[in-house]
Amino acid sequence: MTDVSGAQWTTTRWRREIEDRLAAGGGEPLVNIDRGDRRPFDAIFLGGGAGGRFGAAYLRAMGGRPLIIDRWPFLGGSCPHHACVPHHLFSDAAAQLMLERSFSGRLWFQDLRGKQVSILELVEAFRQGRTGPHAFMNYQSQEQLDLEFVLGAPGRIVDAHSVEVAESIYRARSLVLATGSRARALGLEGESLTGVFDYASLVDRLDYEPGPTAVVAGGGKTAIEYACFFNATGRRTLVVSREEPLALIQDAETRAFLMTRMREQGMEFWSGAHVVALEGDGEGKLAAVTIQTREGSHEVSTDFLFLGLGQQPNSAEALAALGVATDANGFVQVDSRMRTSVADVYAVGDVVGAPMEMFKARKGGVCAARNIMGDEAHYRVEDFPDFLHTHYEVCWLGLGEEQARARLRNVIVLKLPPDNPDGDSVSLPAGDRMMLYALLRPELSGFQKLVIDGDTRRIVGAFHVGAGAKDGFQYLAPLVRKGLTVDELGDMNELFLNPSYFIQLCRLRAGSRVLRGM
Amino acid sequence: MTDVSGAQWTTTRWRREIEDRLAAGGGEPLVNIDRGDRRPFDAIFLGGGAGGRFGAAYLRAMGGRPLIIDRWPFLGGSCPHHACVPHHLFSDAAAQLMLERSFSGRLWFQDLRGKQVSILELVEAFRQGRTGPHAFMNYQSQEQLDLEFVLGAPGRIVDAHSVEVAESIYRARSLVLATGSRARALGLEGESLTGVFDYASLVDRLDYEPGPTAVVAGGGKTAIEYACFFNATGRRTLVVSREEPLALIQDAETRAFLMTRMREQGMEFWSGAHVVALEGDGEGKLAAVTIQTREGSHEVSTDFLFLGLGQQPNSAEALAALGVATDANGFVQVDSRMRTSVADVYAVGDVVGAPMEMFKARKGGVCAARNIMGDEAHYRVEDFPDFLHTHYEVCWLGLGEEQARARLRNVIVLKLPPDNPDGDSVSLPAGDRMMLYALLRPELSGFQKLVIDGDTRRIVGAFHVGAGAKDGFQYLAPLVRKGLTVDELGDMNELFLNPSYFIQLCRLRAGSRVLRGM
Repeated sequence: MTDVSGAQWTTTRWRREIEDRLAAGGGEPLVNIDRGDRRPFDAIFLGGGAGGRFGAAYLRAMGGRPLIIDRWPFLGGSCPHHACVPHHLFSDAAAQLMLERSFSGRLWFQDLRGKQVSILELVEAFRQGRTGPHAFMNYQSQEQLDLEFVLGAPGRIVDAHSVEVAESIYRARSLVLATGSRARALGLEGESLTGVFDYASLVDRLDYEPGPTAVVAGGGKTAIEYACFFNATGRRTLVVSREEPLALIQDAETRAFLMTRMREQGMEFWSGAHVVALEGDGEGKLAAVTIQTREGSHEVSTDFLFLGLGQQPNSAEALAALGVATDANGFVQVDSRMRTSVADVYAVGDVVGAPMEMFKARKGGVCAARNIMGDEAHYRVEDFPDFLHTHYEVCWLGLGEEQARARLRNVIVLKLPPDNPDGDSVSLPAGDRMMLYALLRPELSGFQKLVIDGDTRRIVGAFHVGAGAKDGFQYLAPLVRKGLTVDELGDMNELFLNPSYFIQLCRLRAGSRVLRGM
Repeated sequence: MTDVSGAQWTTTRWRREIEDRLAAGGGEPLVNIDRGDRRPFDAIFLGGGAGGRFGAAYLRAMGGRPLIIDRWPFLGGSCPHHACVPHHLFSDAAAQLMLERSFSGRLWFQDLRGKQVSILELVEAFRQGRTGPHAFMNYQSQEQLDLEFVLGAPGRIVDAHSVEVAESIYRARSLVLATGSRARALGLEGESLTGVFDYASLVDRLDYEPGPTAVVAGGGKTAIEYACFFNATGRRTLVVSREEPLALIQDAETRAFLMTRMREQGMEFWSGAHVVALEGDGEGKLAAVTIQTREGSHEVSTDFLFLGLGQQPNSAEALAALGVATDANGFVQVDSRMRTSVADVYAVGDVVGAPMEMFKARKGGVCAARNIMGDEAHYRVEDFPDFLHTHYEVCWLGLGEEQARARLRNVIVLKLPPDNPDGDSVSLPAGDRMMLYALLRPELSGFQKLVIDGDTRRIVGAFHVGAGAKDGFQYLAPLVRKGLTVDELGDMNELFLNPSYFIQLCRLRAGSRVLRGM
């Protein structure tokens, strides 16, 4: 083992150590234990991703003593290694490439028409760049958050109070399972062929340039986000899903805007369909997939299949060692204090089930920490703002228009672009990073909608397609939860040209006692 | 005159009418008066820009009858015609070009090194595109907001209750001056040479491709925003200002980050300096400017000087016709009900002075409308979030670190990237539209800082450099004004990767009763 306690490594040094271990596929465990601290551990966090690391940091800040154990040589978990961070890189690339393709040969833009750009190069750039965030997480955790950890070696659960790692057994008052999840498999023969990827194996293992056709299985967030990137690289992209794609966006007009834009970019959607067979080329590489649709079965030649079929929990070891209760899909069951069925054992993050989002993992970690430290803290994921990426950023909160109409007698909608009699494309909304579209390709400049209860004047839903509204939705959500009205929203100070026009649209209507849509 | 009342023109039709009038430099006034409405007008809004249009819309929504008079054939004022909208287009172009230059020859990016791109083409594209928003404003104002207006003809103030326009005199209970402002001139001989521009004349009149050197006079928002665009096009860009540039950003570290990035892009800053002479080429075009610095005077050859020296009010006519009180710079003085010194005469928007921001114009218009309709409404511009663009979006609110330290005994700062012993560039923050930087050029991926009163745990200031935080600052500002604490902010739901990391940074520290920085 490498004892790093008191070593005060810089991020550069951390980066070198992490790179060495990743390149070698292993190496000496990195042990940061304060041997001078004689206190027992209050909690072992098994897994140092979002839930484990934030839980440990909070517990430490409260004056407790946590220990994090992670099989990887870095803290932060799958997010910076192969999940959220590369997905955002690819989504940024998709937005950038759509812009360049939309203006190919105009202004200063190069001509990308008909040109395919490399997926492999961007994946390699990511693989090289990701150790920077890894190094920072280790640095921050040790130097700024005073966390103790054992990294780069798998922990083995001994019992509810003990974990064995790097030839030592560590004991604590509590155990927090933060072991995460992994992509769900297809369950077909041929799934181990080169060319069948999920978000993790794509960035970990891609070593060839995919051919001209990408097939994506799934219609949810991950599937659509990666499909838009593959499309933006100039590949034929076929999205195969059992349900309608983007069903999670509960507003028909928003969803329709997105589907129209994706189809314009050339994406093909086969819904009510699924992949039923994989065919290799005889040398271990994918050559074709067979897709079952309502009409029949179709073979598509491709060396590139991406699986975006949801997540399965990493819960088998906890189940075997501790017998924690799980649901039918293997997700660990917890109460609102993040307690499992086994005394002193908590679980947080992806391993407890949906939503597979950062805030849920981190806040679950905090909740577990507070309970371990003697608070009575409760956390239930309730209404939260949500988002996904197509070539655009898409954010939403609350009720879609149809949902609102089903519940309320007087629903008012404020939106841009407006319904417009002659179908002319209006250069609105026009916000940051959408200006070239707004002025030159107005139909591409986004969509936004505010759903209002006309009787109480309260905002009940908000939808945004474009760029730059994610931060806003974070702060808008608690305001809406507290009953934000059209009048209060219209009285805020907009930072013009703001990406969402919610404030100014409200102000245009707020003068009237009887609200009207627009 | 062209009577458009009841015409129900589509945006396409409006666009054609506006284009015709702009191309001809005039034309028939566009009159939309409801002859069937026998009520007197409650207010004439002289000027249909942000303040006039929103004020009229609010007054109408309250059940009153407003009339808007504007010399332009469109509503919306200078913003979409030559102010905020083109500035955002150019700022988007600057961000895009900086990205392409930063990755020139890497991944799929074209090689822009050493290449100059056209300013003229983008200006022409804007000139062509801007009539779309103009048309929409007319459409929305007439069809959705039920506003009456006379457009395309200058109004002449007769008295506090009457304005003459298009050969008719209109009378109202009140008059609202919403006549705006224009760029301040340099006051030097040669200012009318081709090649000397402000934000308005640049987009209205540029008809040649500027040469390799741009000189920008001024160090505030407009000057810096345009300078960054000129720089991004590949021109030598020299910013000449009496004060230090960006002095309006009250946080030294944020300002330093921005100055460093602009200098890296090749921008030159001459502060304590000003333009003292302009030299023509003998054919009416600018050939050189003389700049006085502390060290002496320097002549710079250029055919392109941009003036970003602030605004002067369009108040002369109101002063002459009504004798409204103005300040030393000619801005119309108003009380908190937007009343001028003359009974029944109100003033809103740029004509009443700083800040020259959209929210102030619009909310001033609303305030005037409410008072005219019998409410007692007050509006004073108080603490508001603010922003500007360099190649980045920059947002801020509240106190900078130095200001906070001067007022509070226990100031806590949470920031990214962190201070880091070996100076390695950390790939954080990593947010939307900054991901390519974050992974491949981490030093360019932005800066953010939260300033906290460690005793009360309240947020007192926030600064963000990057992309996508503008919408968030709109909603964060009222939360901060109400006393938002580290604990409340850390309990919100982040939409990861959110452009600002404020929520998660707070959560990492919130567990501790004694806050520490990071």
